[in-house]
Amino acid sequence: MNKAEILTEALPYMQKYFGKTVVVKFGGHAMADEALKYAFASDIVLLKQVGINPIIVHGGGPQIGSMLERLQIAFRFEDGFRVTSPEVMDVVEMILSGKINKEIVGLIAANGGRAVGLSGRDGCLISAKKLVLKDSSKDLGLAGKVDKIDISILQAVKDFIPVIAPIGIGKKGEPYNINADLAAGSIASALKAEKLLLLTDVAGVLDKDGRRIPYAAIAQLDKLKEDGVITGGMIPKLQGVYDAINAGVAKVNIIDGREPHSILLELFTDIGSGTEIARQ
Amino acid sequence: MNKAEILTEALPYMQKYFGKTVVVKFGGHAMADEALKYAFASDIVLLKQVGINPIIVHGGGPQIGSMLERLQIAFRFEDGFRVTSPEVMDVVEMILSGKINKEIVGLIAANGGRAVGLSGRDGCLISAKKLVLKDSSKDLGLAGKVDKIDISILQAVKDFIPVIAPIGIGKKGEPYNINADLAAGSIASALKAEKLLLLTDVAGVLDKDGRRIPYAAIAQLDKLKEDGVITGGMIPKLQGVYDAINAGVAKVNIIDGREPHSILLELFTDIGSGTEIARQ
Amino acid sequence: MNKAEILTEALPYMQKYFGKTVVVKFGGHAMADEALKYAFASDIVLLKQVGINPIIVHGGGPQIGSMLERLQIAFRFEDGFRVTSPEVMDVVEMILSGKINKEIVGLIAANGGRAVGLSGRDGCLISAKKLVLKDSSKDLGLAGKVDKIDISILQAVKDFIPVIAPIGIGKKGEPYNINADLAAGSIASALKAEKLLLLTDVAGVLDKDGRRIPYAAIAQLDKLKEDGVITGGMIPKLQGVYDAINAGVAKVNIIDGREPHSILLELFTDIGSGTEIARQ
Amino acid sequence: MNKAEILTEALPYMQKYFGKTVVVKFGGHAMADEALKYAFASDIVLLKQVGINPIIVHGGGPQIGSMLERLQIAFRFEDGFRVTSPEVMDVVEMILSGKINKEIVGLIAANGGRAVGLSGRDGCLISAKKLVLKDSSKDLGLAGKVDKIDISILQAVKDFIPVIAPIGIGKKGEPYNINADLAAGSIASALKAEKLLLLTDVAGVLDKDGRRIPYAAIAQLDKLKEDGVITGGMIPKLQGVYDAINAGVAKVNIIDGREPHSILLELFTDIGSGTEIARQ
Amino acid sequence: MNKAEILTEALPYMQKYFGKTVVVKFGGHAMADEALKYAFASDIVLLKQVGINPIIVHGGGPQIGSMLERLQIAFRFEDGFRVTSPEVMDVVEMILSGKINKEIVGLIAANGGRAVGLSGRDGCLISAKKLVLKDSSKDLGLAGKVDKIDISILQAVKDFIPVIAPIGIGKKGEPYNINADLAAGSIASALKAEKLLLLTDVAGVLDKDGRRIPYAAIAQLDKLKEDGVITGGMIPKLQGVYDAINAGVAKVNIIDGREPHSILLELFTDIGSGTEIARQ
Amino acid sequence: MNKAEILTEALPYMQKYFGKTVVVKFGGHAMADEALKYAFASDIVLLKQVGINPIIVHGGGPQIGSMLERLQIAFRFEDGFRVTSPEVMDVVEMILSGKINKEIVGLIAANGGRAVGLSGRDGCLISAKKLVLKDSSKDLGLAGKVDKIDISILQAVKDFIPVIAPIGIGKKGEPYNINADLAAGSIASALKAEKLLLLTDVAGVLDKDGRRIPYAAIAQLDKLKEDGVITGGMIPKLQGVYDAINAGVAKVNIIDGREPHSILLELFTDIGSGTEIARQ
Repeated sequence: MNKAEILTEALPYMQKYFGKTVVVKFGGHAMADEALKYAFASDIVLLKQVGINPIIVHGGGPQIGSMLERLQIAFRFEDGFRVTSPEVMDVVEMILSGKINKEIVGLIAANGGRAVGLSGRDGCLISAKKLVLKDSSKDLGLAGKVDKIDISILQAVKDFIPVIAPIGIGKKGEPYNINADLAAGSIASALKAEKLLLLTDVAGVLDKDGRRIPYAAIAQLDKLKEDGVITGGMIPKLQGVYDAINAGVAKVNIIDGREPHSILLELFTDIGSGTEIARQ
Repeated sequence: MNKAEILTEALPYMQKYFGKTVVVKFGGHAMADEALKYAFASDIVLLKQVGINPIIVHGGGPQIGSMLERLQIAFRFEDGFRVTSPEVMDVVEMILSGKINKEIVGLIAANGGRAVGLSGRDGCLISAKKLVLKDSSKDLGLAGKVDKIDISILQAVKDFIPVIAPIGIGKKGEPYNINADLAAGSIASALKAEKLLLLTDVAGVLDKDGRRIPYAAIAQLDKLKEDGVITGGMIPKLQGVYDAINAGVAKVNIIDGREPHSILLELFTDIGSGTEIARQ
Repeated sequence: MNKAEILTEALPYMQKYFGKTVVVKFGGHAMADEALKYAFASDIVLLKQVGINPIIVHGGGPQIGSMLERLQIAFRFEDGFRVTSPEVMDVVEMILSGKINKEIVGLIAANGGRAVGLSGRDGCLISAKKLVLKDSSKDLGLAGKVDKIDISILQAVKDFIPVIAPIGIGKKGEPYNINADLAAGSIASALKAEKLLLLTDVAGVLDKDGRRIPYAAIAQLDKLKEDGVITGGMIPKLQGVYDAINAGVAKVNIIDGREPHSILLELFTDIGSGTEIARQ
Repeated sequence: MNKAEILTEALPYMQKYFGKTVVVKFGGHAMADEALKYAFASDIVLLKQVGINPIIVHGGGPQIGSMLERLQIAFRFEDGFRVTSPEVMDVVEMILSGKINKEIVGLIAANGGRAVGLSGRDGCLISAKKLVLKDSSKDLGLAGKVDKIDISILQAVKDFIPVIAPIGIGKKGEPYNINADLAAGSIASALKAEKLLLLTDVAGVLDKDGRRIPYAAIAQLDKLKEDGVITGGMIPKLQGVYDAINAGVAKVNIIDGREPHSILLELFTDIGSGTEIARQ
Repeated sequence: MNKAEILTEALPYMQKYFGKTVVVKFGGHAMADEALKYAFASDIVLLKQVGINPIIVHGGGPQIGSMLERLQIAFRFEDGFRVTSPEVMDVVEMILSGKINKEIVGLIAANGGRAVGLSGRDGCLISAKKLVLKDSSKDLGLAGKVDKIDISILQAVKDFIPVIAPIGIGKKGEPYNINADLAAGSIASALKAEKLLLLTDVAGVLDKDGRRIPYAAIAQLDKLKEDGVITGGMIPKLQGVYDAINAGVAKVNIIDGREPHSILLELFTDIGSGTEIARQ
Repeated sequence: MNKAEILTEALPYMQKYFGKTVVVKFGGHAMADEALKYAFASDIVLLKQVGINPIIVHGGGPQIGSMLERLQIAFRFEDGFRVTSPEVMDVVEMILSGKINKEIVGLIAANGGRAVGLSGRDGCLISAKKLVLKDSSKDLGLAGKVDKIDISILQAVKDFIPVIAPIGIGKKGEPYNINADLAAGSIASALKAEKLLLLTDVAGVLDKDGRRIPYAAIAQLDKLKEDGVITGGMIPKLQGVYDAINAGVAKVNIIDGREPHSILLELFTDIGSGTEIARQ
């Protein structure tokens, strides 16, 4: 198959996604490897170039943890959420908005794209409120949950690629620490995104023979859980996918972020990448 | 090189040509072969999809000739121009505007694109006047030359792919038969096109060892003519290229229309196709 | 009555039709006579000039028939529809899109207007499918019926006068031969046209004393048919009118195309022309 | 000549004036006769309807004079200008802006048009300053001259027909009494109007045999003055025309306001009305 | 409290009213005193400057009465309405549109604002019909009531401050004399105004101790009427307020027009002015 | 002077600055005090509310220094510039873009405004290159200077208040550490700002009697330097002002940031704040 034929193979996919919004949760190994990061930025620029609207939401847990350690700030988790004191929040915001976010903006520029780094405080993109656990004796500090998405700022920067740090804004302008997957799902839902791509460190959902399942409905996955085929870390990951689908996102793709250009493969080739999950 | 890398290779070219106008003269063998025609239409749709503005100008000499024969209408050429009686003009217009033009529109639709077939009479796109030879005793009838290009209709249909039959319009609304290469050059010049692609039946301009010359300036070609490397049919073809460049087109590409997807190869890959000619 | 008074008489009509769409089916004797053709084009240009949106749909049966004869291509009709082999389709399209359509464009230009000649393949204006008779053993070839009207191309060329050849486009981009009256009715309906004018070779519907009926409701016409006042060729013509009204066109006018400037008389004077038919 | 032919005769004139601005100075007998006023308003509405931009500037000297008398306010003229005390100014403004202006607005509405009555104070349309005579011992009070035209308000009401009372506005918002012909000329000049029509009580400029001269250059008129053909009241009237031409108006027409629909005859028929004067 | 703090106090009010329409009925003492008039115009300009859309509707009863007397035109009232003969109507229109209206325009200009003076005849802003009393033997002449509000002209002049004389237009373009409070209420309702401010000669509605009531619901006022606290001239005034609220205006404010800058105090300070009345 | 009069005093200033751009360099004591920060944000929101375009550029030297110390990262200055190793750059960007920038965004939101925090990397707002000292043996690492300002991103977010961290972007997307005063001057110059306000810790330029000089030309300041009236830290500060003026900013104001609401006092009152400096 020659070069022209591969470009031609991409045409119907370009037509399919033209003008559509694709939210990409960027995280995991892909964010830790120089070559993968660069390939990721290049893919995003190509999407924008052909008329798709990519929106990036990124995480940063490991980098936050290591800075907290350098600064000797103690921290702990409750029920999987980081207890976020004001001191911790400062570090969360510095790492997310001040380091990772702007680095992605720089990589996109290096590939000829135009990005703008935002946090959920900018233009009150992500209004948040305090996250309260059922066991309310466990206070999570400034850990927050999404209250409302205001897409005005995203509409204003529509000619740019938005890169979003998952930080919310409270009634008094104060910051909240939001889970990146949930932020990405909420934004995808508010934008009526065509799909939500989750860059992960797995090849997708595997069947009992260890082969990647390209497409799956929720019921089918539930069956695989019952049958013990899906186990371990994939179970909470799928819960996040279900949450996004319940929030109104039509299709969520678990993509293999360890593979270079997995976004292009997923969107523009017959091969695809990872597993695409829809309600049915 | 895998699929994603080939798409990635195309990115800088897409960035380079984004928003630019590319006029394509469609003719020769590429117009006579079903598979080549289909590949041509697919390439044009891909260009439009990624934000380039392709404008097609087509010929149709052989098809006109064969219809004139079927209708037993005698015709002759003077100094290389078809003497165009009103009866001949009717056939020229029926074949160009009524057969070839709409067929290309249909092929583009078959590839998911939206085209609109025009002639130079539509919206007075190509105002023409009678072509008069130096030896004015030889009357060419309704053979015409471009007087003025009015791009209003092209601006109105900017979301569509215009396919243009090279017929001009006189002061009283009457048609003129215009040479397709000259029509393409005039339109490219009026639109300040980024480039003019001429689909031909040759591999490009060849050097003395028969190898394709990818880029050439006019002076370099003149030297090759003097040296007897360029001969035969390529000489009048180059004259057309010079005319287009003199009319203000920056770059003219002689493309090999016999090769499938030669337009994609030229625009989006490092390989290219044919010979690109610039003033210097 | 002096000139100024006649212009003043036209004012309330101009106000009434300002900004409205009027679809005109052009055909019959008016299309065969040089002076009538010129007067028709002049009327259309005047309509556009005063802010009305005229849309022309033309036929061409006699011209197609005579070209088929010149080319010695046999053809026949089934149930009133032309059986359209690919060879016949070529001729239909050449005559409609390549000869009649562009000639009208030229006449409009000669009157200072700006027209654009389209077929239903352009911008997929008329999506069509194969017309199948009840007696399905009679195959009509590429005779088609309207499936869907996409008015995008008409919106794009809103500053021009569209002249439309009644040819449809199939799923693979192929042409279909569509009845001009039906095409005009479908387009009028899709555009929510103020009225549909049918240029015919009669003075309108006549009452039992042979006097023109200026306005009529369907029920009134049905009564005249029962009473034997309306007979012969007028009966199928009225069926077409009923079809257009059923497709949602508010008013259909049967105009006398043999009278010069009958369109102006109908739209801008107290005299009128022909018969205006409404549901009730 | 039938109705349709008269409409057709108007077409090239409609094309010629489409989108152009025509300033009309309304005054004299045409403003004093009910039938003429109504015909005037009808003409103006027709102009607007066919896409011309008529701008009306009106006078009102006789009506002002009669109200001053009713109110027993003494007044006098110096060098042809009304000496305008604050008390006189009140009456000037009430008659112009409160009576004549709104009456014209009403007549236009009665003909189906949409007008808006303005004075030069609205939107600071006519900035004015005190008019000072050479003999500065003669004080003219609030008689003013045009300082600057600000066309913003005219652009805002472009979908309406502006009817303008010739009152200017000073630095402190105070009114000035401006000569209507000069106001019309200044506005025509600021709008780069196609022409300025002056409705007068004469048939136009006459030659030595008493026949109307349809077109004249300034030099030709100067010759007629020298030859004693042009005499009396026409001499100051022509001075106003020359002033307008010197202010940059291309063509000024002296129209016979006593003839019904003289504006339509001038603009839309081969007959014309009065005399058109251009620099050369 | 220093200057900056007072400006800062205004900020939340500016945010609250930004982009909102506020209709102001201008009348009474505020219109008769030079300093109050000037302060009023300054307030209106400030409103417009900070992004609020003020619309002024003015009265003029005393000025009309005094001009009728000067002209020795007899007039009388029936059921509180001025019987408006054509002769009276002329004076009404001259005073409202020709004197008061343009004077306010001038005062706004003097404060650096851009106003446009309109009457309800302009752009058919206020369509009116004859006001008929229950006792139809009492003919009110050209006294009219609002039939329909057409806000097109207000939309066209949105960058200007409209100053409106309460005169309506009938089917034949003729004027009608409309009550200013009712005109203001109808316009406020048609524009879905945020509030209607009525400048009056009282401090607002007072409670039994003579203290101003800042906010009141209709029921509360009805109770005060029953209790005999509200008496005299305030009763018809409140009826006008109820009418406006019934016509759909959310909030009506009775403002003390005798106090300089009462509009600013009401809109931009914690102090307020007069009484704000809402349905509940 | 009552509240309404103070608001009225502000009107001509609001008119003067309406639609104009004012760049504010935020730094010093005003950025370190909670009440001053809040008042600053409130002032900025008021400016935006009344139609001025405030653009904030902030510094952060002390906060950067203290974080470098906490992280035990050694650093030094050369010729007044911070030598910026990649490790230092990380801290600079985290503090500026991740801490201070988003905190200002939050304060603006708390005052009802909508801000968006940007760095010069976003949308390639500030293209930068390496700063090279005359003594090129002293390498400054990633200390940069402004190469080009691209205002596209500022135009896109025109409905928001941009808050800009002074970080530049290199050819490969890498960050550069830019002096905040120079960044503010370059942005003011690129935006053709009406004025540049520098919030400082002084009362302005003082004359020999210690009184604030409200307005000064460069020559006048040079004279005061010669005369020894201006000394110490004011000298380099003025150099920055001169640089901004030389870069094309018309007026630069040294404002007393220690005074609450000094921006409002400067822009909207007759009192003013600090010293306004113009070329002459």
